[in-house]
Amino acid sequence: MLPLRYEGLVCSIARTLEVIGDRWTMLVVRDAFLGVRRFDEFQRSLGIARNVLTDRLARLVSDGILERHRYQDRPQRYEYTLTPAGLDLWPVLISLLTWGDKHRPEDAGPPRLIRHRGCGGAITERATCAECGEPLPPWAIETELGPGS
Amino acid sequence: MLPLRYEGLVCSIARTLEVIGDRWTMLVVRDAFLGVRRFDEFQRSLGIARNVLTDRLARLVSDGILERHRYQDRPQRYEYTLTPAGLDLWPVLISLLTWGDKHRPEDAGPPRLIRHRGCGGAITERATCAECGEPLPPWAIETELGPGS
Repeated sequence: MLPLRYEGLVCSIARTLEVIGDRWTMLVVRDAFLGVRRFDEFQRSLGIARNVLTDRLARLVSDGILERHRYQDRPQRYEYTLTPAGLDLWPVLISLLTWGDKHRPEDAGPPRLIRHRGCGGAITERATCAECGEPLPPWAIETELGPGS
Repeated sequence: MLPLRYEGLVCSIARTLEVIGDRWTMLVVRDAFLGVRRFDEFQRSLGIARNVLTDRLARLVSDGILERHRYQDRPQRYEYTLTPAGLDLWPVLISLLTWGDKHRPEDAGPPRLIRHRGCGGAITERATCAECGEPLPPWAIETELGPGS
């Protein structure tokens, strides 16, 4: 088992991995970027056990990556949205996605396409536009399922 | 426990996390980018149990991230260097590092500084130069321990 903290390692990579090194955690963050907000939607999208999802959502809230808002009183129901620190995980997510597209490709092509909205250029591993070179934040892109989905 | 494969998830992020989602794995990759090549150097740098390190190195080789070269015959000793697929993890590593520097800072400052060699500009979360804007591959940077180390 991995320790949750790497006390001896003064390293910003290690510190980030303490927060998002768990793989389900990063896939929850991915879904949040795709607009998923509610427990049942995360659960359906990921096919994850409910107790595991409960744990990951709680940890993402306490780590300051997600914010929880109540949207219904009886029974109490919550939505989860990305905080500014969560939105800053965008370059991490895109670099993971483009590496997977290149080095673990589906035969049919990428499962998901991410393009510069308006321009149409593909997103690069640096979260810039392959056509015009502009940095692409999450609100400058459009996405759809690709041929490999 | 997490499953090693996410069969139901057609997603390039999930596929990448199958390879590097383990936190020690990414720290081994970090050390490889810093020039660490030999088992004992990885072991000293990470303070990781030897059996865990043996496992992670073997997995990185079979996953095509590291290459193993014999440098000594009696006893047999090996060096590990990044493959082209491993070198392509650079944007992942830099986005993790810059997120940690920003959102999990040391009081004294960043533990490690990465700058554009010659230019001196800091590296951004998109692995570009904050001064001149050029993309910064691993061979265009210089690095030293920072105030938080």
